[in-house]
Amino acid sequence: MSEDNLCTAGSQSVKLKKEVYINGSASIVGKKEGEGPLGLLFDMVGEDDMFGCKTWEEAESSLQKDAVYMALGKAGKKPEDMRYIFAGDLLGQSIATSFGIMNYNIPLLGVYGACSTCGESLTLGAMAVSGGFADNVICVTSSHFASAEKEFRFPLGYGNQRPLSATWTVTGSGAFVLGSRQETGAKAKITAMTVGKIVDFGLKDSLNMGACMAPAAASTIAAHFIDFNSQPEEYDKIITGDLGSVGQRVLLDFLRDKGYDISDRHMDCGMEIYDADTQDTHAGGSGCGCSAVTLSAYILKQIAEGNWKKVLFVPTGALLSKTSFNEGQTVPGIAHGVVLESLG
Amino acid sequence: MSEDNLCTAGSQSVKLKKEVYINGSASIVGKKEGEGPLGLLFDMVGEDDMFGCKTWEEAESSLQKDAVYMALGKAGKKPEDMRYIFAGDLLGQSIATSFGIMNYNIPLLGVYGACSTCGESLTLGAMAVSGGFADNVICVTSSHFASAEKEFRFPLGYGNQRPLSATWTVTGSGAFVLGSRQETGAKAKITAMTVGKIVDFGLKDSLNMGACMAPAAASTIAAHFIDFNSQPEEYDKIITGDLGSVGQRVLLDFLRDKGYDISDRHMDCGMEIYDADTQDTHAGGSGCGCSAVTLSAYILKQIAEGNWKKVLFVPTGALLSKTSFNEGQTVPGIAHGVVLESLG
Repeated sequence: MSEDNLCTAGSQSVKLKKEVYINGSASIVGKKEGEGPLGLLFDMVGEDDMFGCKTWEEAESSLQKDAVYMALGKAGKKPEDMRYIFAGDLLGQSIATSFGIMNYNIPLLGVYGACSTCGESLTLGAMAVSGGFADNVICVTSSHFASAEKEFRFPLGYGNQRPLSATWTVTGSGAFVLGSRQETGAKAKITAMTVGKIVDFGLKDSLNMGACMAPAAASTIAAHFIDFNSQPEEYDKIITGDLGSVGQRVLLDFLRDKGYDISDRHMDCGMEIYDADTQDTHAGGSGCGCSAVTLSAYILKQIAEGNWKKVLFVPTGALLSKTSFNEGQTVPGIAHGVVLESLG
Repeated sequence: MSEDNLCTAGSQSVKLKKEVYINGSASIVGKKEGEGPLGLLFDMVGEDDMFGCKTWEEAESSLQKDAVYMALGKAGKKPEDMRYIFAGDLLGQSIATSFGIMNYNIPLLGVYGACSTCGESLTLGAMAVSGGFADNVICVTSSHFASAEKEFRFPLGYGNQRPLSATWTVTGSGAFVLGSRQETGAKAKITAMTVGKIVDFGLKDSLNMGACMAPAAASTIAAHFIDFNSQPEEYDKIITGDLGSVGQRVLLDFLRDKGYDISDRHMDCGMEIYDADTQDTHAGGSGCGCSAVTLSAYILKQIAEGNWKKVLFVPTGALLSKTSFNEGQTVPGIAHGVVLESLG
């Protein structure tokens, strides 16, 4: 047992004995995301959301392909330099991933954590690198508004009304090249992770996923503080994935009940990516792509520029399917925490 | 870089510097599997395939719950002894997993590799333990004939004809407790892994998945021999997941073309679990559960009894969804190899 990699017994967290570097990353988004507050920061913005493909699913695949291509380029790497790819998406059987990254011929470890998948892929990728199983890996996740609506809710043509608690699935993909050595252009390092448990408060509303996921985010963040005996003040930002404005209120309340006030340093990717007032996105953005593109375009930029020294990044996921929803099941949540630190 | 964990550059494989022990495992299957050739070896056989639940999906969740419960019991462990659970299934958004293992409160890392998921979960679980990120983890995967037919093909009530190349999805779940120390009742150790690439030969027939997956199995097995500079003769058995009789022929031909003859030591879990002549299962069994329950009930028993010293276990997966199939996409395959050795 390598003591240094473990926190105390019963802990959900890992402190990396050997830190892992994010040596490159890239983001690609759809038209709506390009028109949002972060629009100018993304590496590529599509002119329409088909990205030259025939189906929404193919379009999402092409997002992953392009994100991986750009991230490799920015890290100065080739596909064959990557020992493994950790990848996933929201679609049944992760088909956006299978058909998106196939041609790179990188050995694939497929992951699923709903919209927390970006956190899970970084967690497993960092373990693989830190544990000496790989020198370099790449992590990629995606979502697409239209393929997600088809997968989880109603056909777009049906034109259903969306309640104000609903979030808007981000069309986008973010990819991250992790390495055991800091290379030119490295943006941040991963120093610790807190793997989330499934948390189910019995909510059943797939049009209020922020509330469904907030208890899981609170659970993971509180577990992180306990495992590391740390306080919110030690982090410049604590950033959730896609709770949106409704979920944020629940999160802050839950954490206050546990004795932690993170309100002055909490940020939610879903609330950053759109301008809810002018873009009609209601509670905010969601989807695997939401936290992934915000991390690549905005969060890593802030860290690389030295504005933030230490960030707890916590993508959040809602564990439902069309089938589980139609069968009357609840919508449990999960959230995975990754500690990102500046290289300075 | 921990040299010992890596094979040469460009390799897909890992040789574990610190070996990982399978300290307990369990299998639960449905009625049909209980009536098959391996029937007496499974830990539990259901009287009908609903397992006391209201839906097929809930039934599959209960399989995972029971497999985890029994595996923990056999390893003499409690849920809180498990730092992580690596789990997945075939259903969209892995709902069998989410609703099956939720109540154990073990931090979850969800995996998806279609029917190769058992191999992927063991690979990632072994990395987590060997890398010092966990003392104990549990890996669980499942499939269910009826939930899979609903997910991928036709409603059961439609009574579609199945071609002879079709496989029968196994109703079952297998769980494996991995640990950094060999404990009483340990059955085998994991010493190496070969992570698979996606291989697409352009086949589109979801009722001939054996042929779709065989090229991927051949790719992973050949890569394994190259990475370790080994020959088939060094393994007592080379065991694929669910190629069935059609896929087996393709696999043996492909490997012969690559210079490897494994015909005298190849076994396929899908061909072991049913008696094709009397059980009307055509080409064999399939599903995440197929390789998982065969590993727990039969393969680990042979290794523990010293009949087999070294086994290359290669679960195979077909990367399709109902959506990708209906949109005319191909059915690519993937296969992950795990080396299991006796403790003697």
